[in-house]
Amino acid sequence: MNLQDLLDPTLDASSKGFPHHAPPLRRSAIGSQGWNVLRGDLPLPLAVIRRDALAGNLQWMQQFAAAHGVGLAPHGKTTMSPQLFRRQLDQGAWGLTFATVVQLRAGVAAGARRCLVANQVFQAIDLQGIADLRRTNPGLRVAFLVDSQAQLELIAAWHAGHGDTAPFDVLLEMGVDGGRTGCRSHAQALALARALRASAATRLVGIECYEGLGATGDSAADTAYADALLQRVRAIAQACDGEQLFETDEILLTAGGSAIFDLVADQLKMKLSLPVQGLLRSGCYVTHDHGTYHRFMSAVARRMGCGHGLHAAMEVWTAVQSCPEPGLAILAVGKRDISYDLELPLPIAWRAQDGTAVQAAPPDWKIAGLNDQHAYLRGSGAEHQALRVGDLVALGISHPCTTFDKWRWMPVVDDQYNVRDAIVTCF
Amino acid sequence: MNLQDLLDPTLDASSKGFPHHAPPLRRSAIGSQGWNVLRGDLPLPLAVIRRDALAGNLQWMQQFAAAHGVGLAPHGKTTMSPQLFRRQLDQGAWGLTFATVVQLRAGVAAGARRCLVANQVFQAIDLQGIADLRRTNPGLRVAFLVDSQAQLELIAAWHAGHGDTAPFDVLLEMGVDGGRTGCRSHAQALALARALRASAATRLVGIECYEGLGATGDSAADTAYADALLQRVRAIAQACDGEQLFETDEILLTAGGSAIFDLVADQLKMKLSLPVQGLLRSGCYVTHDHGTYHRFMSAVARRMGCGHGLHAAMEVWTAVQSCPEPGLAILAVGKRDISYDLELPLPIAWRAQDGTAVQAAPPDWKIAGLNDQHAYLRGSGAEHQALRVGDLVALGISHPCTTFDKWRWMPVVDDQYNVRDAIVTCF
Repeated sequence: MNLQDLLDPTLDASSKGFPHHAPPLRRSAIGSQGWNVLRGDLPLPLAVIRRDALAGNLQWMQQFAAAHGVGLAPHGKTTMSPQLFRRQLDQGAWGLTFATVVQLRAGVAAGARRCLVANQVFQAIDLQGIADLRRTNPGLRVAFLVDSQAQLELIAAWHAGHGDTAPFDVLLEMGVDGGRTGCRSHAQALALARALRASAATRLVGIECYEGLGATGDSAADTAYADALLQRVRAIAQACDGEQLFETDEILLTAGGSAIFDLVADQLKMKLSLPVQGLLRSGCYVTHDHGTYHRFMSAVARRMGCGHGLHAAMEVWTAVQSCPEPGLAILAVGKRDISYDLELPLPIAWRAQDGTAVQAAPPDWKIAGLNDQHAYLRGSGAEHQALRVGDLVALGISHPCTTFDKWRWMPVVDDQYNVRDAIVTCF
Repeated sequence: MNLQDLLDPTLDASSKGFPHHAPPLRRSAIGSQGWNVLRGDLPLPLAVIRRDALAGNLQWMQQFAAAHGVGLAPHGKTTMSPQLFRRQLDQGAWGLTFATVVQLRAGVAAGARRCLVANQVFQAIDLQGIADLRRTNPGLRVAFLVDSQAQLELIAAWHAGHGDTAPFDVLLEMGVDGGRTGCRSHAQALALARALRASAATRLVGIECYEGLGATGDSAADTAYADALLQRVRAIAQACDGEQLFETDEILLTAGGSAIFDLVADQLKMKLSLPVQGLLRSGCYVTHDHGTYHRFMSAVARRMGCGHGLHAAMEVWTAVQSCPEPGLAILAVGKRDISYDLELPLPIAWRAQDGTAVQAAPPDWKIAGLNDQHAYLRGSGAEHQALRVGDLVALGISHPCTTFDKWRWMPVVDDQYNVRDAIVTCF
């Protein structure tokens, strides 16, 4: 994959949302076509990213990390967009995080030189993939998670057959009872760290946890949860340091989704015998959302006491295609186009086809259901009664990841919905 | 989009599931690489299509339609795969169905010459898109749905400004109270049909309904539901014919998802003053599934009294990445990879890494949850206790549409999981 094709690929009308009649265009040429979403220049449904909110989010999160003395290694799985990876790195991100070696490859191609794979790697093809990436990208650092002796044995077995491969940098993952991956106890983690130190296949470079699965939105509960988990992370870091199990110049301590990252950031700093680099891995902050993360960030803002600077940057615009019964409008958008995993889409705005200004969606509007290609917009008020076939409706999302992965490209729009730029995704 | 790029595009390691180290390959070259899924030649997770089940499904559904004297216009939205579109057309499909003009464009590029857009079309850019497709593909037939005067007015307004455009072929959609789109009453439908006849912008060529949303799996209820709906479809067809509202050589009567299509097929035939072409639009039959459609088809088989010939052709293979607690194995597969909209994935098979044969998944195995990139496999029996990091697990799906749209390509495998062919998707 060459860099121009990755950062500036040619898009055409085979991609959803691209104007049927437009010629193939380099991504970088899209912003100068003079397209406007509200004027009907692009087929609907259409996921758009609001330019100013995006820029603000990129900046705010980086500033948050800097203010707390930790680095930011944004999780690339959210967007899988090489253009957004570059924006994050240009903004000052320490590096990028990924969930798989396929994703890692895209990030390295986009220019990342410090990468975390916040997941267990153990398959031969993936270990080979990391070894190949390191060989072809001198100076590339990749660290992935280990949480079991069984996983280490698979890594060691592969490495034994590939003697010329440098050891893999790994992070010891701490988990919680009833949770997902990760060592459940200090003793188990310490035994594994010793085995990682003893193995010729691995170099222990840090400790990792993911606190986001335990987030509830209740600050007292979330604080207690994060404190307990990070206390365990710090204790195992201390123990590993005491036994000189780290094989690195710089110990990585990393946590952090996009829900309660403020509760872990300060705990990623500690004094050990080597420099410690704290790393947050938030991903969803890039576009933020109108649902789950909006609510989590309200709690973050209350805890910070000074608000926060994230704004929902992603909207999916579509049109009313039928008003078959009072109180029901059918929208031309469905499961193929928008997140539905945490909650259904949220009506946020609408615009009558007579060209009047965009209005906020009334509070009685609800998406009551979603089929593959249709949404059921229910409402009881006068605005809903006034809806006509052809009127435009904008839906907000809950959970950016599962809207990003439904689009191969998205326009970046200004406040008047002029298309100013575009990003592509590589899921 | 030229046909070679559509049917035989070049794939590379930027696409999930493609071997990291393999050079870019034409799709048609993938089947001769000697790759085997169980041997670890491709990174996991990986959605695969079983070759023989796919071939059998394509054949069985076409035979079903032929045996019932109706045509098959498979819904392309399920797969959005040009290779599968070609297989369906080669198998004898009358044409193809789509949900949007973007999808239609892909189908026409793949060779479809008779197309239904089983959805309301009304936006200027989409009407222009259909007009352009007809102009550049002489002989192409496209019919889309109309269910309201408001929609007709939008079409007529566009057409009035594009006087050289032939009228649009449209199907009158019949709906049900409490349902989705479609006319709710005979009187409303007949008034709309008269307006379509009177308009210079449209030619009424048939009647459409979609019975699938009402399917429950209970044969008595489903039969009553389908009978009532199709009776209304036939009544409006009769009335339109009586008033000579159809402007066509052949009246299209179309219904049919993949759940209770056997209850509508025979009712799509009737004697009118013009020849009648009945059309089923099933889409999910292509790969069938292990969940929702498996259950619906069990009822179809009971009604037919002779079984059915559909077999689940889609599987998502992955590996155990962690066994952190008794009874819990974490799999490297998540919302990015597999359907979760109708129900969670269904464990169907597994294979220990010692290379023993693939075993059926024990009945105590359940996917208890799904994150973006992880699945929680819970179980209580000896096989679950025996699971080790690196063991392979195959998940079945419920609802093919929402797994297809998570992959840009999929290998087609034989019974030994040798990769014999590949398809691409264009969502």
